[in-house]
Amino acid sequence: MSTPPRVTIKDVAARAGVSKGAVSLAFNRKPGLSDATRDRIFAAARELGWTPNLTARSLSSRRVDVVGLAICRPARLLGLEPFYMEFVSGVESVLTERSCSLLLRLVRNLDEELAVQDAWWRGRQVSGSILVDFRADDPRAASAQRLGMPVVAVGHPSLTGGLTSVWTDDATAVSEAVRYLAALGHRRIARVGGAALLGHTAIRTAAVDEAARRLGLAGVRQVTTDFSGEDGARATRSLLSAPDGDRPTAILYDNDIMAVAGLSVAAEMGVRVPADVSLLAWDDSQLCRLTRPTLSAMSHDVHGFGAEVARTLFGVIAGEASSHPVATPVLVPRGSTAPAT
Amino acid sequence: MSTPPRVTIKDVAARAGVSKGAVSLAFNRKPGLSDATRDRIFAAARELGWTPNLTARSLSSRRVDVVGLAICRPARLLGLEPFYMEFVSGVESVLTERSCSLLLRLVRNLDEELAVQDAWWRGRQVSGSILVDFRADDPRAASAQRLGMPVVAVGHPSLTGGLTSVWTDDATAVSEAVRYLAALGHRRIARVGGAALLGHTAIRTAAVDEAARRLGLAGVRQVTTDFSGEDGARATRSLLSAPDGDRPTAILYDNDIMAVAGLSVAAEMGVRVPADVSLLAWDDSQLCRLTRPTLSAMSHDVHGFGAEVARTLFGVIAGEASSHPVATPVLVPRGSTAPAT
Repeated sequence: MSTPPRVTIKDVAARAGVSKGAVSLAFNRKPGLSDATRDRIFAAARELGWTPNLTARSLSSRRVDVVGLAICRPARLLGLEPFYMEFVSGVESVLTERSCSLLLRLVRNLDEELAVQDAWWRGRQVSGSILVDFRADDPRAASAQRLGMPVVAVGHPSLTGGLTSVWTDDATAVSEAVRYLAALGHRRIARVGGAALLGHTAIRTAAVDEAARRLGLAGVRQVTTDFSGEDGARATRSLLSAPDGDRPTAILYDNDIMAVAGLSVAAEMGVRVPADVSLLAWDDSQLCRLTRPTLSAMSHDVHGFGAEVARTLFGVIAGEASSHPVATPVLVPRGSTAPAT
Repeated sequence: MSTPPRVTIKDVAARAGVSKGAVSLAFNRKPGLSDATRDRIFAAARELGWTPNLTARSLSSRRVDVVGLAICRPARLLGLEPFYMEFVSGVESVLTERSCSLLLRLVRNLDEELAVQDAWWRGRQVSGSILVDFRADDPRAASAQRLGMPVVAVGHPSLTGGLTSVWTDDATAVSEAVRYLAALGHRRIARVGGAALLGHTAIRTAAVDEAARRLGLAGVRQVTTDFSGEDGARATRSLLSAPDGDRPTAILYDNDIMAVAGLSVAAEMGVRVPADVSLLAWDDSQLCRLTRPTLSAMSHDVHGFGAEVARTLFGVIAGEASSHPVATPVLVPRGSTAPAT
C-alpha cells in the first residue's frame, strides 16, 4: 500500500482518462473542468498515492519555514503522555537544523483539523503539515490532495489513503510481544490498549487476536483506554481483580505511562511483579528504566521517529519522498517479565 | 518590580523628556527621531515596565491567531521533562478556545531566540510571544520593548526587566520545603537543582541557603543538573555515596523526573526510602503518584500555569494585563518523606 515513487502525473491522467494538462488544472484549482472530471482526477491520484510536485513558482510564494501539526487529544492528556513529547522533540530537532518552526494546534475533532489545515494552507501559514492519529475512513488524505498541500502521514498505509506515509510496523511488533509472553509460558495474556477510535489501536488489536489464534491461546483479553496513567491503573485493577484462575499472568500495555501505573496497582494489590504477573510496556521512554522493577518494553526510538517524519515532509515538499516504515519496535526484556509459574 | 497597570505613555514621555508623539514614533518605528532620543525612550519605557498598547489599526494588519514560544533546551531533553509538555498543554488549552495556534521553536541559545522573535514579529507571523527560562541580565526584555512586541514573561519580575510577568514564588516554596524537612528532624539536607544558568535555579539556591542559615542547618548541599533523569540519578548516587555521617537524610529535587530517578538509585543502593532518606519532588506531575513509595512533592498546577500565561498574553495584546504570580507550590506529603531517625 506504500506510494511507489515511480507514479507520475501521466499515470494519474491515464487512470482518470484525461490529459496531463487536466490533472494539472485540477490540482492548481484552475477553471475549465467539470466537477465530475475534477473528482475523477482526485480519486485517481488518491488511488495511486500521487501528490503533485509543487513547482518552483508556487513554492517561492509560500512560507517554507513553518511546518504544521494538529493533534486531536484533550490538552490535559497531551502533557501526560511521553510519546508525543518525544515525537515533537524529534520533529523539532530536524526543524531546528533548517531554522524552521512548528505550528502546533490542539483540535477537538477531525472536522476542526480539516478546517485548521485548510486555513493554514490557504493562508500560507505553513509549507506543509504532519498528519497523525489516523482512523478508519479518515477524511484528511482526500482533503490534503484536494488542496495540493504537501503532507506526511504518520500511520500505516492501510489507513492513510495514499499519502506519503511513515509508520511503525505495530502488527509485527505486537505479535512478537505476544509470542514472547507465550514462550515464557503465559496463557492468560491481557492487553491494555489505547484509544479505540485510532487506526493503530485497531491494527494492534487484530494482530493480538491473530497471534493468539495461531498460538492457541484462548484466554486473551483486550481492553481500550484513553492512554492516561489513570485509565491504565483502572484497567489493571479490573484485570487483577478477576478470580484466580481467570487473572491474567501477563499484561501488555500500549504505552509506558500506563505500564508504570500498572506496576503501582500491582504493588497496591500485593500482586508481585514479575512473580505473579509480568508487565510489558510500549514506547519505552526513560520512565521504563526508572521504576523498580525496571519495565520490560517494546522499545522504539520515538525521538528518531519524529525526526524521520520531519525529514520525510521536507522530501514531500521537494517532490522526492516515498512512504516507508521506521524500524520495528524491539523487545527489551528487563525486570518486569518472567516465566509463568 | 511588577508592572503597575497605571503606567501610561505620558509617564514614559515625561521620563524620557519627550512628547507622547515622540514615544509613539519610536514604538511604531517611524522616522524623525535621533538614535539617542529613540534609545532614551526605550530605556524609559523599560524602566517603567511600559509596553505600547497596540492600536486597533496595527492589530488589524497582524495575525492574531498565532502565539510564539521559543524554548532554549536541547530537543532530546524537552521530550523527557514533564514540565514543558504540561505547560504547553496548558497554553494550548487557552489557545484552542480562541482558535489560535502555537508557533513552537527550539533554539540553541539566546542570540538565536532574539533573532527568531524578531523575525516572527517583523514577518507578522505571531501576534505575541511567551518568553521563558529567564537568566540574569537577560536581553529579551529590551529587545521585545524595542520591537513593541506584546510578550508575557514567565519568570520572577527581578529577572524579566519590566515585562508583564507571570511567575511562581519559588523562594517561598523552597523555603517551606526546607522548613518542613527540618521540622521532621533532618539536618543534612541536599538539593538536586536544575540548570545553573537559569534565574529560577539561582532564586531557589539563594532561598535554600537563607532558610538553612535561619534554621541553623550547617550540612546543606546543593548541586545543579541539566534536569534530566540521568543527571538526577548521577547526582543522587554521588550524594548517597558519602560516608555515613555526611550522607544527606533528605533530598529535595527541582523537578519530578529527577526525584523518580533518585528513588530508583536509592533502591539500587539498598538505601531505604523514607526510612534512611526522605525524597521530595517538585512540579508533581502524575509520575509522583505512580511510584512506590509515592513521592512527596512541592505541587503546583503546571497545566493551569500555562493556561494563565496564555490568558495574560491575550491581556497584553489587548493592553490590559499586569504582572502577577500564580499560586505558590504547596507541599503534598506522600510516602517518600518521614521523620529523620
